[in-house]
Amino acid sequence: MGPQEVRSLLEGVRTGQIQVNDALEQLKQLPYDDLGYAKIDHHRHLRKGFPEVIFCQGKTTPQVAEIFQKLANASNANIIATRASEEMFKASQELVPEAQYHPLARMIYRRQINTPQQGLVCVCSAGTADLPVAEEAALTSELMGNRVERIYDTGVAGIHRLLDQVHKLHQANTIIVVAGMEGALPSVVGGLVSKPVIAVPTSVGYGASFHGLAALLGMLNSCASGVTVVNIDNGFGAGYAASLINRLVGDK
Amino acid sequence: MGPQEVRSLLEGVRTGQIQVNDALEQLKQLPYDDLGYAKIDHHRHLRKGFPEVIFCQGKTTPQVAEIFQKLANASNANIIATRASEEMFKASQELVPEAQYHPLARMIYRRQINTPQQGLVCVCSAGTADLPVAEEAALTSELMGNRVERIYDTGVAGIHRLLDQVHKLHQANTIIVVAGMEGALPSVVGGLVSKPVIAVPTSVGYGASFHGLAALLGMLNSCASGVTVVNIDNGFGAGYAASLINRLVGDK
Amino acid sequence: MGPQEVRSLLEGVRTGQIQVNDALEQLKQLPYDDLGYAKIDHHRHLRKGFPEVIFCQGKTTPQVAEIFQKLANASNANIIATRASEEMFKASQELVPEAQYHPLARMIYRRQINTPQQGLVCVCSAGTADLPVAEEAALTSELMGNRVERIYDTGVAGIHRLLDQVHKLHQANTIIVVAGMEGALPSVVGGLVSKPVIAVPTSVGYGASFHGLAALLGMLNSCASGVTVVNIDNGFGAGYAASLINRLVGDK
Amino acid sequence: MGPQEVRSLLEGVRTGQIQVNDALEQLKQLPYDDLGYAKIDHHRHLRKGFPEVIFCQGKTTPQVAEIFQKLANASNANIIATRASEEMFKASQELVPEAQYHPLARMIYRRQINTPQQGLVCVCSAGTADLPVAEEAALTSELMGNRVERIYDTGVAGIHRLLDQVHKLHQANTIIVVAGMEGALPSVVGGLVSKPVIAVPTSVGYGASFHGLAALLGMLNSCASGVTVVNIDNGFGAGYAASLINRLVGDK
Amino acid sequence: MGPQEVRSLLEGVRTGQIQVNDALEQLKQLPYDDLGYAKIDHHRHLRKGFPEVIFCQGKTTPQVAEIFQKLANASNANIIATRASEEMFKASQELVPEAQYHPLARMIYRRQINTPQQGLVCVCSAGTADLPVAEEAALTSELMGNRVERIYDTGVAGIHRLLDQVHKLHQANTIIVVAGMEGALPSVVGGLVSKPVIAVPTSVGYGASFHGLAALLGMLNSCASGVTVVNIDNGFGAGYAASLINRLVGDK
Amino acid sequence: MGPQEVRSLLEGVRTGQIQVNDALEQLKQLPYDDLGYAKIDHHRHLRKGFPEVIFCQGKTTPQVAEIFQKLANASNANIIATRASEEMFKASQELVPEAQYHPLARMIYRRQINTPQQGLVCVCSAGTADLPVAEEAALTSELMGNRVERIYDTGVAGIHRLLDQVHKLHQANTIIVVAGMEGALPSVVGGLVSKPVIAVPTSVGYGASFHGLAALLGMLNSCASGVTVVNIDNGFGAGYAASLINRLVGDK
Amino acid sequence: MGPQEVRSLLEGVRTGQIQVNDALEQLKQLPYDDLGYAKIDHHRHLRKGFPEVIFCQGKTTPQVAEIFQKLANASNANIIATRASEEMFKASQELVPEAQYHPLARMIYRRQINTPQQGLVCVCSAGTADLPVAEEAALTSELMGNRVERIYDTGVAGIHRLLDQVHKLHQANTIIVVAGMEGALPSVVGGLVSKPVIAVPTSVGYGASFHGLAALLGMLNSCASGVTVVNIDNGFGAGYAASLINRLVGDK
Amino acid sequence: MGPQEVRSLLEGVRTGQIQVNDALEQLKQLPYDDLGYAKIDHHRHLRKGFPEVIFCQGKTTPQVAEIFQKLANASNANIIATRASEEMFKASQELVPEAQYHPLARMIYRRQINTPQQGLVCVCSAGTADLPVAEEAALTSELMGNRVERIYDTGVAGIHRLLDQVHKLHQANTIIVVAGMEGALPSVVGGLVSKPVIAVPTSVGYGASFHGLAALLGMLNSCASGVTVVNIDNGFGAGYAASLINRLVGDK
Repeated sequence: MGPQEVRSLLEGVRTGQIQVNDALEQLKQLPYDDLGYAKIDHHRHLRKGFPEVIFCQGKTTPQVAEIFQKLANASNANIIATRASEEMFKASQELVPEAQYHPLARMIYRRQINTPQQGLVCVCSAGTADLPVAEEAALTSELMGNRVERIYDTGVAGIHRLLDQVHKLHQANTIIVVAGMEGALPSVVGGLVSKPVIAVPTSVGYGASFHGLAALLGMLNSCASGVTVVNIDNGFGAGYAASLINRLVGDK
Repeated sequence: MGPQEVRSLLEGVRTGQIQVNDALEQLKQLPYDDLGYAKIDHHRHLRKGFPEVIFCQGKTTPQVAEIFQKLANASNANIIATRASEEMFKASQELVPEAQYHPLARMIYRRQINTPQQGLVCVCSAGTADLPVAEEAALTSELMGNRVERIYDTGVAGIHRLLDQVHKLHQANTIIVVAGMEGALPSVVGGLVSKPVIAVPTSVGYGASFHGLAALLGMLNSCASGVTVVNIDNGFGAGYAASLINRLVGDK
Repeated sequence: MGPQEVRSLLEGVRTGQIQVNDALEQLKQLPYDDLGYAKIDHHRHLRKGFPEVIFCQGKTTPQVAEIFQKLANASNANIIATRASEEMFKASQELVPEAQYHPLARMIYRRQINTPQQGLVCVCSAGTADLPVAEEAALTSELMGNRVERIYDTGVAGIHRLLDQVHKLHQANTIIVVAGMEGALPSVVGGLVSKPVIAVPTSVGYGASFHGLAALLGMLNSCASGVTVVNIDNGFGAGYAASLINRLVGDK
Repeated sequence: MGPQEVRSLLEGVRTGQIQVNDALEQLKQLPYDDLGYAKIDHHRHLRKGFPEVIFCQGKTTPQVAEIFQKLANASNANIIATRASEEMFKASQELVPEAQYHPLARMIYRRQINTPQQGLVCVCSAGTADLPVAEEAALTSELMGNRVERIYDTGVAGIHRLLDQVHKLHQANTIIVVAGMEGALPSVVGGLVSKPVIAVPTSVGYGASFHGLAALLGMLNSCASGVTVVNIDNGFGAGYAASLINRLVGDK
Repeated sequence: MGPQEVRSLLEGVRTGQIQVNDALEQLKQLPYDDLGYAKIDHHRHLRKGFPEVIFCQGKTTPQVAEIFQKLANASNANIIATRASEEMFKASQELVPEAQYHPLARMIYRRQINTPQQGLVCVCSAGTADLPVAEEAALTSELMGNRVERIYDTGVAGIHRLLDQVHKLHQANTIIVVAGMEGALPSVVGGLVSKPVIAVPTSVGYGASFHGLAALLGMLNSCASGVTVVNIDNGFGAGYAASLINRLVGDK
Repeated sequence: MGPQEVRSLLEGVRTGQIQVNDALEQLKQLPYDDLGYAKIDHHRHLRKGFPEVIFCQGKTTPQVAEIFQKLANASNANIIATRASEEMFKASQELVPEAQYHPLARMIYRRQINTPQQGLVCVCSAGTADLPVAEEAALTSELMGNRVERIYDTGVAGIHRLLDQVHKLHQANTIIVVAGMEGALPSVVGGLVSKPVIAVPTSVGYGASFHGLAALLGMLNSCASGVTVVNIDNGFGAGYAASLINRLVGDK
Repeated sequence: MGPQEVRSLLEGVRTGQIQVNDALEQLKQLPYDDLGYAKIDHHRHLRKGFPEVIFCQGKTTPQVAEIFQKLANASNANIIATRASEEMFKASQELVPEAQYHPLARMIYRRQINTPQQGLVCVCSAGTADLPVAEEAALTSELMGNRVERIYDTGVAGIHRLLDQVHKLHQANTIIVVAGMEGALPSVVGGLVSKPVIAVPTSVGYGASFHGLAALLGMLNSCASGVTVVNIDNGFGAGYAASLINRLVGDK
Repeated sequence: MGPQEVRSLLEGVRTGQIQVNDALEQLKQLPYDDLGYAKIDHHRHLRKGFPEVIFCQGKTTPQVAEIFQKLANASNANIIATRASEEMFKASQELVPEAQYHPLARMIYRRQINTPQQGLVCVCSAGTADLPVAEEAALTSELMGNRVERIYDTGVAGIHRLLDQVHKLHQANTIIVVAGMEGALPSVVGGLVSKPVIAVPTSVGYGASFHGLAALLGMLNSCASGVTVVNIDNGFGAGYAASLINRLVGDK
């Protein structure tokens, strides 16, 4: 309820068309209704371009399958379920035959034929063991309508492998950098290009990596400006954030 | 040195114009020279739109003043020095009279008259004590050529204050959210709008805030997709990353 | 033994009715006896309204079943066993046929037909994965004689879902808020209502949630006044504390 | 502006005494009125019994004094400012002569002559060094309309000192237990009485107390049911939560 | 080799009975030999009263059995192997038929018929889940020649259970206190008696117990003087240290 | 007031020499008398051999001086105040002229001429910077009636310095080992002798010593059996615990 | 391809024996050839003495076997794969029959008959459970061309066992010290000899060892100069670093 | 006193030129001689090339000056005192006029004219704020007889600055890499060269650098083989370890 509606309400009170008590009730009821409306509208707007996402961890297989089916029936959009087991996929596929599964990224998804193609997202990863997280980021970006360039196995200990790919980095709108262990890759990438870099620490490592803490701290303390960070192993979150950025840019 | 140059070199060897030893030397010297060049070019490109930045912490007052002067003489660009004391400002101002100081944000800067105006960055902060970090983010964004809308004192414990400003959030390209204590504000903002949200944890709080750790962890674990995080109290980093995003968008 | 009893004792000594040695013995024995008495009385009082509770973790299945039976035989009260496996339930049920099991909350219980009905406890939870802890809190509250309103899946990233339920929150005496990840929900709830809020962090999350640490710190640093916190995943503790509060209020 | 004022306003509109435009302006001028009506009412209701509170840490002395004056002028309620320096007090007192200061609790306050008297809150503390936090809790409770019984210096290493006071604990509605070092006191108190216990860890200690972490963890892991915990050194939060509970109980 | 031996050596050199080269060799060899001797003697002395102990964790089953047999053949002393699996026991028993197993304490041992009986060690534990560690401490103490009084299930939340046993505590030379969760029991015991208290934190608990960290920190910060602490779950270490103390006391 | 005095009091009541009311008063005036009889006896017994101790940290200078005076007047015992500033000493000395100060150990004390001499306590320290804590331990032990041998500056990096002193270690009943940095000294000492070793980690170090955490963890994980640990920098606690052990041994 | 091969290639181009296109192709086929020439040379040089190494953790069995085969075919060098399962070994052995497996060190390797013999590396370990890490260090050193002396089971609690071996330590160029629990051994070794000591903390221990953190911190805080540290359980890294040092020394 | 001197002494005894008692005295006067013979030799040998070092932190100014003087008088060697204040320097200089001070490295030293020149140590640092630690490492290396090449301000965010200096890195025997914030530089350097890399994390940074923890963890998890790590800010330790390595290499 905006100023216009409040003015109408007050005019109604003035002319006696609206009782004082009723007006009082309406004024009481409004705040979250109005905002709820705006929220819903916003959510609908959100959903237009981007699919809703099921976070499977902590859900049962039937729950996942049922939500997947519900979302699939509700629209033609791409559907994504992350951190999904193969068992969850099979249950989902029974209900939604066009469901697909990416075992490395542990994602179930339904892909539209005509997914729009926004600008380029580069996904770099440091080592082979970082691939599951990198693929989660890459597939999320693709399913959200971006072109994705994968630049894998470019750890900082062999810096020439990265330097060889710098031209690709320059072409991207946004760069997702996935690394475990010391998590130094985003700093190097962030120093090489002037694009937003989204750093994803992974739990790859052992000992004093403390399940990704070392990489996380490294990325938060990056000496390269323009690097922002998501949670450990949160490839989806990076892919989602990159898509939000790319959607701003549009067709550029 | 790309494939073309290598081919030329080899042709030179074949025709005898280039000695084998000289070719060997050139092949040895190339990789980082070439890349260094590209880097320099990239850096120059970077510098065209964005000013270079002095991180004053750990530098002496004369060092800061001298670097500030050097940068000021080198170009007409906006100059930024962060985490600067008033004493550093005074020393800088003696050398660069048009230097200005923002005591809350602890920034020294020189602002061009005609700073270009990219799209809108919203800077939200949760509480009064978060203002220094929020102002660092806001002023950085402004000096890097963005319009900035400040939405301050909108902590989640009084959620209506934020809800009242939602329309402003929708107008921004990028939203910087600054919060200490539990750091919950980015989750709420990230749930309300579908724009990239850059979360800045602050060291505001006491006890189990552990100097910003609580806010940092809260933001990294945000249940709202599209939230990325920078280091504790790193308002500059957030402003810089927002500017990188906005620059992608351009005049839109 | 209070002042009155000591005076009587001394009078007995004075009149010769009590021997010095006997008086000395009584004075020696008293402190913990007296307090033990008061304790026992207190404990009995405690037990009148509230069932004793078996914490099953770290106990063997036969131990759990035997204690359950012993408690069940000792009174007509509701019996609760928390963190119980299904195997423990089956062993308990053999001995106490009216035993029931709530697999999600992992609780074995015997419910009286006429459990008294104190005032309302609201149990809010942020996400689906928080349900086991939320149900432990809710079932504990119910078995301890409270009416319970469940408000589930109201994470702060979709704040309108919570705002729609605010009227329910206002009706409760006490509100239990269960959340993992960033644990921001209690701050928002605590800002909306002026009732005691008991926050329960859960170990739901991954990476930098550090098994619930992020949610725990977030809740301890809540910017909303009136929020108190229990251990990670301690739904029982929250339900118990809410019952203590509600018992104070009584029928109001 | 509460329901009564809004009704009067609407009556004024109905009778023509107030112009629609003027009414619209008044409704707009309420803080966040248009959107936050119900919230405002809630806040006003809140303010009837409980004073608004200024958290001084991170604010300047003039800011504190100005807010204190504004709050003092706005109502007759008790006014509280926590974590305040003596300098802040003096500045406040110049503007609000009836302001008082409690140096140990570091609180500035204005106390009404007729503060209502709700039920009893017991504030226990373990050691002398915990007194500042205990006093913050006690004074907050008093200013929010509760009777307060202080039971100080009752650390668990001399358990008889506590046992001697058990009868007082039984009379309280709510018990605040303040302890540093190992933070064991709430467990013992929680085992002795069946009342809600709000535990406040303090940063008192050294070495492996890690600025209150040991006490905090101890309290969160309390083996006594019914213990909830607030942030390290958060005496105000405990006093506030205790008042919320006591307000539920009312005159009982 | 002490001054006397060196003097003899030098005399031998002087009289020509010992060659310079031989003397040089002897002087070279001495330091660690001598100390090694003392060590060996010390070790032998140590072994007289106390059995050698096999720490099984990280050893293979055949290794454990072989060492157990070797120790059993070498002397009549009590033999102890800690953190042993049942499989390790069976393999050991095949080689040493009189070997016994305590499944709760996870110890393999051979007990002499005539284990000497030093003074009394009290082993207190807070909860049922702490029993494995408490039994490891108790059995270690017994096998090292102490009488042991077990006082179990005396958590601080039911302080009267402990107070009823205070007379037993007064009779002991040394008191081992085993507790998980908040680890408060040693503080209470240490306040009640003036005997050395050895505190053993256990990993019993969940959430913010952080696998025994909470109990460990609580015990290190004990406000009761005279409390010393061993590693989490280190019942053996506590039993061993108590035995060293009791051996000092001897028959007293 | 011990059993003898209570018996006398009761005899006085029996014979009529003491009025019942007066007896009641006397029993009341004992600290926490009515309830805490056994405790008081324990405390008195405790006090016979061992002085009461003032922990000055967190107390004001006048508080310290007043308590010091009160204790000094109450008995002839040695009086100890730890973590005391020189200013606290001067204030105490004004009230108790025979007070002395040990600036390194930061202790105020009054020493009886005829402090009894129990057996030997060895205090080893690793480095010069550990001396304040080592002296606190040594002086505490002396004031509690033990002979003390100081073996300082024997860090494990120069192991021969320690090995040279092994004979002294063998003569002690109890050995206190004070070390910062990696805290390895207790393991080496514990391996050399079969006496109770009380390890005191100090906050000496920098960087990854984390204010004594490294030393603390090292000592808790000591591979030498019989090592127990106190809080970081808690020299007093080690001296106190050693005295409790030595008192058990008596004149041996 | 080293300098010699590139020179030959260029000579071939000069004399016309090699076409420019073919030469270009060859230079391209080097991994990252065009840009990374100097790197390649470095790598080739590296590989002359040292084998390439496969880090198996996070790789699939077929991946490991395939890379192992590829490396084995590419040169006659020693091949190392670390953190390898027996299953990975079997798959590798099918492809490379001369592959061997060290189950304790969890390494697959192919050893040349004529591995060069650089100077001596001593590998000390503290306890039996540290052997897997120690063997990884020792075998790595051997396969990289060093003579290795193993000095095992020399924990600091039995310091004489180490002292007896000091002469061996003096003969080594570099000493690797492997220890879990309190990690004190490197300090003692570093104090005894003036050679570079590489300390390897292991995750051996329990409770407050926190999976090797205690040992790691202890080693980082070593009071012995000249000690450097690698990651927890990183025996390979220590063996590799020792080889780099030994290679500097050469035949000395 | 080395083997030669002892042999001479024994010869003197044999020939009667030295009395047995005098010989005994001489052997006794060696520091810890009787027991520590081999150690002494080692120490003397150590001292020949390398100066003894005073760690000033935790020592008083007079202590530092006195030890400095004592060391200066005892030999002609270079003398080093680390973590020294200017005040300590002035006091030392009064006693040892040729003492010098390096304020950035906070070292007092006396440098011989003819310090021997071992091979090259490279000291790289990432940023300006790392210079104090880098200079401590460099000056330590120089005073211990190494040539030092400083390569400063080569953070990974501007990787070309490092790449330009790679040829210098190849010339060094050992490379010390000093970096704060994310501490990524050692990984990049370790990947570029096959020399031992000693990584020094610094406490430079803020927020989630946690006083150097981020850099420390990053370096321990380096994906480049051959990197070993010292404590945070321990430039001296790195310089010392590099010197030990270089001394092995000798004049090569």
